[in-house]
Amino acid sequence: MKKTAVNLLATAAKITEHWSPRVVGEVDDSYVKIAKVKGEFTWHDHQEDEFFMVLEGQLTIHMEDHTVTINAGEFYVVPKGVMHNPVAQEECTVLLFEKKSTLHTGQVQADLTKSISDQLQPL
Amino acid sequence: MKKTAVNLLATAAKITEHWSPRVVGEVDDSYVKIAKVKGEFTWHDHQEDEFFMVLEGQLTIHMEDHTVTINAGEFYVVPKGVMHNPVAQEECTVLLFEKKSTLHTGQVQADLTKSISDQLQPL
Repeated sequence: MKKTAVNLLATAAKITEHWSPRVVGEVDDSYVKIAKVKGEFTWHDHQEDEFFMVLEGQLTIHMEDHTVTINAGEFYVVPKGVMHNPVAQEECTVLLFEKKSTLHTGQVQADLTKSISDQLQPL
Repeated sequence: MKKTAVNLLATAAKITEHWSPRVVGEVDDSYVKIAKVKGEFTWHDHQEDEFFMVLEGQLTIHMEDHTVTINAGEFYVVPKGVMHNPVAQEECTVLLFEKKSTLHTGQVQADLTKSISDQLQPL
């Protein structure tokens, strides 16, 4: 059991690559992740819901029938099965909450795809 | 499906009672909750892990063998089965991530206990 709290922005500051989520905690069968993102990701969906909270910056999530903008201090849950493509004009730091089974780019294999073992690399 | 992001602090500003978590989102079989807390809660444990992130203020979580202080922008996960008692000297706003099955005060029935239906009241 950890004995101290985790500072999200201080931990995110160690991330050097965009669109490369890193696991910073686990809650039962889910992972807490942080990511730095910039530019456009890729269209994909998941078999699980995906929680996005913006810690710094602004994230836009395009979905097939609408678009959501998430500012710092806000969250949005992309429901399972909904195709989505996150985009950040400027660098943005995001907190993610996902089932351990969630695949980074769903069934899509993209250049940006990170495996769970990539995401589990300690910061 | 919601069409906009949720601002956590703006939503928390509608909460008028301490230690009364309110559900603001769901992610598969978990709830996203926010709570305003002040003073001492009560010793209890859960059958599930419990994620605490402080949005404003400072939360101290006493456990049997150690104590963790969580400042704004930090999180801590209390593992399942670990007795804990949260305390906030000043008012503090907290984001919680918990399984839908998680009972507010575990098996303890306290004056402060809120049912899941209490927690599901819309803000």
